[in-house]
Amino acid sequence: MDESKITERGRRTRQRIIEATGEQILASGIGGTTLDDVRAATLTSKSQLFHYFPGGKAELVREVAGWEGKQLFEAQEPFIHDLGSWESWEQWRSGLVHYYISRGRWACPIGSLATQAAMTDPDLERVIADSMRAWRELLAEGVRRMRTAGLVDDSADPVTVATVILAAIQGGLVLSQPERAAWPLEAALDSALAPLHAASRPQGAPAA
Amino acid sequence: MDESKITERGRRTRQRIIEATGEQILASGIGGTTLDDVRAATLTSKSQLFHYFPGGKAELVREVAGWEGKQLFEAQEPFIHDLGSWESWEQWRSGLVHYYISRGRWACPIGSLATQAAMTDPDLERVIADSMRAWRELLAEGVRRMRTAGLVDDSADPVTVATVILAAIQGGLVLSQPERAAWPLEAALDSALAPLHAASRPQGAPAA
Repeated sequence: MDESKITERGRRTRQRIIEATGEQILASGIGGTTLDDVRAATLTSKSQLFHYFPGGKAELVREVAGWEGKQLFEAQEPFIHDLGSWESWEQWRSGLVHYYISRGRWACPIGSLATQAAMTDPDLERVIADSMRAWRELLAEGVRRMRTAGLVDDSADPVTVATVILAAIQGGLVLSQPERAAWPLEAALDSALAPLHAASRPQGAPAA
Repeated sequence: MDESKITERGRRTRQRIIEATGEQILASGIGGTTLDDVRAATLTSKSQLFHYFPGGKAELVREVAGWEGKQLFEAQEPFIHDLGSWESWEQWRSGLVHYYISRGRWACPIGSLATQAAMTDPDLERVIADSMRAWRELLAEGVRRMRTAGLVDDSADPVTVATVILAAIQGGLVLSQPERAAWPLEAALDSALAPLHAASRPQGAPAA
């Protein structure tokens, strides 16, 4: 719908519905989330729900994915747009780990929705795949900046390193969940950042 | 139920129900799977279903997790019990990647159930966490065998290396799914195996 036509109060209601749906999905998965649950949690009527989300559940779930993705990216600011020094990588890493710890749930909103969406909703899958690629590209851009700054040599392929780091985040979370602890995520992240460190060279050393 | 009392025909029916439920869970998630769907897919009656699975959906989903886990472990045989040489690691890796490719779905039965079970079913979560730990222990055992054989030095901590490898598998699959391609999984796995390679030393070299 045309967002410019929504009042401030309407915007808040709409956001409240998105957040309640996000909670429901985290608790029961996309398949276990019904519009009735969402209505009960937000005390909204059927017609209100369809006023804000004419596309029904599918549209609502896509909005949740967009909103969760936004929060995830914000948690990585401002470092995700820098990553041009070791300090920046270190701060990015610690902000991200802190974000997952503070959520109280060892699950990546993007990663866990990706798994669920793959077979059920091609539109949603596309939205999530785009987020994942945008995320990868930001990390790859950081690796390129490290190269330009002469901090790593050319053996670190930006897209491969970025893919390995993202995989470490997603897989680390899968293993952190049953342990209720950050160490699997941190071990995976450290290992994924190792190729970058291995390709590092003393600042100021001449390019090969 | 006491399995010794089930006839061969009953066993087949029971297995058919488990497999149909597994398909349904892959397609719609645990939350989106109902006993009615399972009954429709297997042409079984309500009383038949509860005869085989008195615990209802929760029991059935646990049986699916056990059965999928068994297949996943079988796909890694016999190498997962060896891993005492580089050839064995290489063969294990290729068997595992082939298993995921042949499933036609970039999802790990254990990993994706773990994500879904975490918040909804503590019993199921425990079953899956046990599988995950058993898997990690087999990989850690392999790293120890590499040490004993003098193929890697003591810098490779077995449990950490095993955790990093498992995380690479889980996260690699999350990234392979939207790409419908093996390369993210393979890039993540190669990176996770790198610390092992980095700690390798020429066969026959004296222990430090």
